[in-house]
Amino acid sequence: MTTIPGPKALVPFVSVDHMMQLVHRIGIRQMFRGIAAEIERDFQRWEKFDKTARIPAHHEHGVIELMPTADGEIYGFKYVNGHPRNARDGLQTVTAFGVLSDLATGYPILLSEMTILTALRTAAMSALTASYLAPKGSKVMAMIGNGAQSEFQSLAMQEIVGIDTVRLWDADPRATEKAARNLAGQGLTIVSCATAEEAIQGAQIITTATADKRNNTILTDNMVGQGVHLNAVGGDSPGKTELARGIVEKSTIFVEFPPQSRIEGEVQQMPPDHPVTELWQVMSGTAPGRISAEQVTLFDSVGFAVEDFAALRFVRGKALETGLHADLDMIADPDDPRDLYGMLMRAAP
Amino acid sequence: MTTIPGPKALVPFVSVDHMMQLVHRIGIRQMFRGIAAEIERDFQRWEKFDKTARIPAHHEHGVIELMPTADGEIYGFKYVNGHPRNARDGLQTVTAFGVLSDLATGYPILLSEMTILTALRTAAMSALTASYLAPKGSKVMAMIGNGAQSEFQSLAMQEIVGIDTVRLWDADPRATEKAARNLAGQGLTIVSCATAEEAIQGAQIITTATADKRNNTILTDNMVGQGVHLNAVGGDSPGKTELARGIVEKSTIFVEFPPQSRIEGEVQQMPPDHPVTELWQVMSGTAPGRISAEQVTLFDSVGFAVEDFAALRFVRGKALETGLHADLDMIADPDDPRDLYGMLMRAAP
Repeated sequence: MTTIPGPKALVPFVSVDHMMQLVHRIGIRQMFRGIAAEIERDFQRWEKFDKTARIPAHHEHGVIELMPTADGEIYGFKYVNGHPRNARDGLQTVTAFGVLSDLATGYPILLSEMTILTALRTAAMSALTASYLAPKGSKVMAMIGNGAQSEFQSLAMQEIVGIDTVRLWDADPRATEKAARNLAGQGLTIVSCATAEEAIQGAQIITTATADKRNNTILTDNMVGQGVHLNAVGGDSPGKTELARGIVEKSTIFVEFPPQSRIEGEVQQMPPDHPVTELWQVMSGTAPGRISAEQVTLFDSVGFAVEDFAALRFVRGKALETGLHADLDMIADPDDPRDLYGMLMRAAP
Repeated sequence: MTTIPGPKALVPFVSVDHMMQLVHRIGIRQMFRGIAAEIERDFQRWEKFDKTARIPAHHEHGVIELMPTADGEIYGFKYVNGHPRNARDGLQTVTAFGVLSDLATGYPILLSEMTILTALRTAAMSALTASYLAPKGSKVMAMIGNGAQSEFQSLAMQEIVGIDTVRLWDADPRATEKAARNLAGQGLTIVSCATAEEAIQGAQIITTATADKRNNTILTDNMVGQGVHLNAVGGDSPGKTELARGIVEKSTIFVEFPPQSRIEGEVQQMPPDHPVTELWQVMSGTAPGRISAEQVTLFDSVGFAVEDFAALRFVRGKALETGLHADLDMIADPDDPRDLYGMLMRAAP
């Protein structure tokens, strides 16, 4: 005899295949818009959230992190790893999955793959932030680092900010070729560049998404002129930065959650009291974004739990709407909650 | 077109149904022995583990917690909730699931239900600890609180410590009836008692497993005589205790992980420097357990991540050995790790 779990005991599960189908069903551009709208909504009610720095477990080759948050009604967390060396062995450097739960009962209400979803939400967050900070009418983005994030960043910036040109550069030309191939036919002018200096020529937005786990100053101070928006995606752990200190010094810095950003972001290079502006304040109108055309703005992106929470909420709605999920028998569901043992015994073959 | 995930992208999943089948395949007594052996092994190499207090998210009706740990090679965490009010609505007060991962790559290697597994490991931990602390030749256990944990505790103590009699009491006589019915025919003498005082008559081991989220002193000081082992399972969060302060005061207290126990355990009633003994030291022979027949020993059980880690390792081995698992398409697995976007686009219908 097997038991038939009740509806509360079944958790909707969005697999990698479901997620890919969902992207094609909805359209990747609508996914960016939908996730960005949820992130903006959640940043505008920032004070409702339980916020905590992520909880890491370190290994010489990488880190595994848990990123929990809750808004008083829904709880969510993401499991994510970062293992730069994985790529050499044919594995993803970042994989992730996430869970949403009903905080009033503790029952999970969604389990979802988040490797693809993290790429989508990271790009959506970058583009949403650029829509507040980049110079008005930005058309050209330099994309420094042409790995797994680069196409997502480019398309989200096109959809949400309205750029029409992406200038690609990577230390490995094969990565640039791959990104150029993937981005062809999307209405973007793609320029493959031989150096980082060349890539940033004429760019109003400079996105960096490199993955080395070390301080790696691809951009130096004299390369970055006035009136640029920097979108620094790749530096996201202690000892892992992408920008020279001089660039960080001359920028107005915008962050997600300061206690986390000061440890993990580009701003880790600065003293602990270096001024930063919280993005939720910009999005809710209580702090200024870009205040002049000459200003260098820096989104010191490290990724925060509230962004994953917003993305998971969006996916849950769409998965239930489209039926693109499986139902996992994850929660024991005895008829009498005090009789877990009886349920177990009645399941004897 | 759907993608066929590679083997690394598939995560073995042990559902509630798989877990129940596994218990019947192996036998619940062998499950207790196997899990207790893994816990003992892990407590004996305690210093290898990353240890952190659990990370809670609170709600007026309960709490959701993450409990991560790692031994340098394997990473694990448990998601668990505690919502006492759930029982009124026909839901489990405690539900749980857990994950193991390869710390060197960050890839998950097991997702398992843990509602049933937590009940098994909690009982295995109680019995393992009693095998170190209870008076030699203990035969009689009082079981105070006859909810979901009571049968597991009774059977594990029978299997590992060798008790032959369980004296049941619960504020709700229907819970006692349920436990007595479930425990019939297992070689235990079952005595259903009308009061807690009656239940502890002649008991060498007193197990308390009540679930109210408040300080709830079912046992008072003058009820507990010399030479008893107290196994306090139910008190496990701030403001939730089961024993009168006088009992805690006269006991030699043994705990899992002091920083967590001092917040969540019975010992929260005492000053922050009140002496406690760490169980890993007892199990590895560097601290004494019971030192006299008259001593009152108290296992101030709150449940620690290393116990879940040990239980998950045991389950993974048995699930792979028996085939009692499904394989979840949880990890995106592009041929080229830098080409997540290309994988997504090639999955177009």
